[in-house]
Amino acid sequence: MKFIENGTVVNPKGFRAASVAAGIRYKDREDMAILVSEKPAYAAGTFTSNRVKAAPVLWDMHIVNDAGMAQAVVVNAGIANACTGDEGYQICAKTADAVERALSIPFEMTLLGSTGVIGMQIPADKIEKGVAAMADLLSDEPEAGHKAARAIMTTDTRPKEAAVSFEVGGKTVTIGGICKGVGMIHPDMCTMLCFLTTDCNIDRGLLQEALSEDVKETYNMISVDGDTSTNDTCLLLANGMAENPEITEKNEDYEKFCEALHAINRHFARLQAGDGEGATALLEVQVKGAAGHEEAKKLARSVVSSSLVKAMIYGHDPNWGRIMCALGYAGVDFDPYQVDLCYKSKAGEVIVAKNGITTGYSEELASKILSEPEVTVICDLKMGDGYAEAFGCDLTYDYVKINADYRS
Amino acid sequence: MKFIENGTVVNPKGFRAASVAAGIRYKDREDMAILVSEKPAYAAGTFTSNRVKAAPVLWDMHIVNDAGMAQAVVVNAGIANACTGDEGYQICAKTADAVERALSIPFEMTLLGSTGVIGMQIPADKIEKGVAAMADLLSDEPEAGHKAARAIMTTDTRPKEAAVSFEVGGKTVTIGGICKGVGMIHPDMCTMLCFLTTDCNIDRGLLQEALSEDVKETYNMISVDGDTSTNDTCLLLANGMAENPEITEKNEDYEKFCEALHAINRHFARLQAGDGEGATALLEVQVKGAAGHEEAKKLARSVVSSSLVKAMIYGHDPNWGRIMCALGYAGVDFDPYQVDLCYKSKAGEVIVAKNGITTGYSEELASKILSEPEVTVICDLKMGDGYAEAFGCDLTYDYVKINADYRS
Repeated sequence: MKFIENGTVVNPKGFRAASVAAGIRYKDREDMAILVSEKPAYAAGTFTSNRVKAAPVLWDMHIVNDAGMAQAVVVNAGIANACTGDEGYQICAKTADAVERALSIPFEMTLLGSTGVIGMQIPADKIEKGVAAMADLLSDEPEAGHKAARAIMTTDTRPKEAAVSFEVGGKTVTIGGICKGVGMIHPDMCTMLCFLTTDCNIDRGLLQEALSEDVKETYNMISVDGDTSTNDTCLLLANGMAENPEITEKNEDYEKFCEALHAINRHFARLQAGDGEGATALLEVQVKGAAGHEEAKKLARSVVSSSLVKAMIYGHDPNWGRIMCALGYAGVDFDPYQVDLCYKSKAGEVIVAKNGITTGYSEELASKILSEPEVTVICDLKMGDGYAEAFGCDLTYDYVKINADYRS
Repeated sequence: MKFIENGTVVNPKGFRAASVAAGIRYKDREDMAILVSEKPAYAAGTFTSNRVKAAPVLWDMHIVNDAGMAQAVVVNAGIANACTGDEGYQICAKTADAVERALSIPFEMTLLGSTGVIGMQIPADKIEKGVAAMADLLSDEPEAGHKAARAIMTTDTRPKEAAVSFEVGGKTVTIGGICKGVGMIHPDMCTMLCFLTTDCNIDRGLLQEALSEDVKETYNMISVDGDTSTNDTCLLLANGMAENPEITEKNEDYEKFCEALHAINRHFARLQAGDGEGATALLEVQVKGAAGHEEAKKLARSVVSSSLVKAMIYGHDPNWGRIMCALGYAGVDFDPYQVDLCYKSKAGEVIVAKNGITTGYSEELASKILSEPEVTVICDLKMGDGYAEAFGCDLTYDYVKINADYRS
């Protein structure tokens, strides 16, 4: 399994992309994208756990859970189409209808994604014009994927895209994707939209299972601000065009597929966390020695979500008591006086607490380690084999600035 | 029941206070306080739910759960005495020992409270000297209470103190208190220390029950930053010196006591929330029409804890979709398209969403309403009778500033 240089969503065979400036809410930039598969593809998806689900989420859930097939994905940035009632759902239907007219893709084969302000209606005419314009621009050139990755950004500072490839039965199989963050990000689906494509020939049930399982260890382990969005969506289309022997059981080939899927999802999770709103650093929390995997996950999520830990990373302050505190309220039983804490980055590694007490470490070194753009906190509970990692970022003035005045 | 003007912790009969600059970590300010009851008092308490409990919390839990009697409370600000192991617990014993030597109060009758940095040891000699100095300064003058309220502050910008009085069997009964916030504040005991005194003659079991129940509706409904501290403590001493007929059952007198206790606790909860680290506004969230009280509490806590809601209050941005979003991830079932949302403050009142959809309200008016120092968000789910309120504050640059560089 390897990452493809400058890989993107159109690397898998039979996928094309396009994007356009539809003028939905942003000015002077592209704000709409489409992905199209040459053949109908199996469609797997995971969606926000929020009780308030945006219209495109409801639309996609229906398609993924019912027929489980799709051929196009239309995405817009700027307006979330959430809290928009029947009118919002009608926009979804109009979008699919526009795709059918422009590309002869059946109405029920178009998936949707929206991100942006809640409670505002999307102008239907702009969406329809956007779809018609994109139909003429579809391309399988990498540049089309790169532009699509940019078009779906909101407060993201960087586009997020990648592709990995591996061999199955003598055939090269590829998984590609684009995604965006980066506010309202919290475990159990972030405000993230993630669109994955693959040419892998794989059973529909296994495709969904692979995605559902992997999302728990990757996107659901990100926290930017503790808010779980109304729009989180991760879609994975598999069109089988790699022509590998179909993966129909949990054999070695399935393992390879899962490994590649995990690699791209973990990569995206880290990109999203590191590009959290206002972030200056990626914070990775590793918990080991927990009683079990679920306990380790709860502990890692608690630390990575703590406002005080996040602010301390921003300030490069090795105030490790805050990490102990966040472990302590995770709702998991452990002995504080068995915990070791370590900070790690390119600048080095330092154990700050041993058995729950300070080691008398060098504050200067610890602060230097925390000054890097990627920082890892390692918590060892010395109880069992439970391991988990979680991804987050620091809490900065800019986070507040971005969110105090989001709409103007 | 009425609030006493400039009331404080020494208003109830038989209570004295003192404070001193012990130089534990702060310079040029008082950082230590003591409360003493003339007679041994029943001691009720509630403590942090954090798995990592500071030494003074463990000390107090032992006394409150065992004998349930106390005569003194010693508090320091600057160092939390958390993650300090056996050495930290020895500091507790040395403090109680110093009180016994200075005031002839039995060793096991001194309760403790600490707040400040985690993982650092308190210098024992400074604590011992501080206790000795305070023994000579004890006074039942209001000024002694006012100074004690200031001495226990950390990042608080204002001292927090109050007293209420009411009649029981022809006798005036008083409840007084001092408390502090204001970071690591989250439901299930905040980083808050709260010391309540009363001269009420009341059964020890009922005293604890009244406190435990009321804390759930007041302090446990505050969120400043989602972090539950290692040191949260609320103590209530009752010395019976009002000489009212002892309250031994849940009768009308008990109701009066609970009502007065709730009034002072709610007052403190609002003071703590409004003085959250870096806060410019108190945010009160009222949820009504929920299926039940517990559901209403979960929903209110979810909204008041949302970073995005808090940032939007700071920005005076009526972006109500964020409130819907926070309701949606509270883990409670409801119909988004039945929800009404309203903003209220001294500047007026505006319904921004009706049945989950925008009302086309005036953005200008809504923004003006959100510009006041006390803002209320009312969420009506129209399902049942469940009501709850939660207290928080906005998220500001100053919160980040305070916490990025807490120790320097």
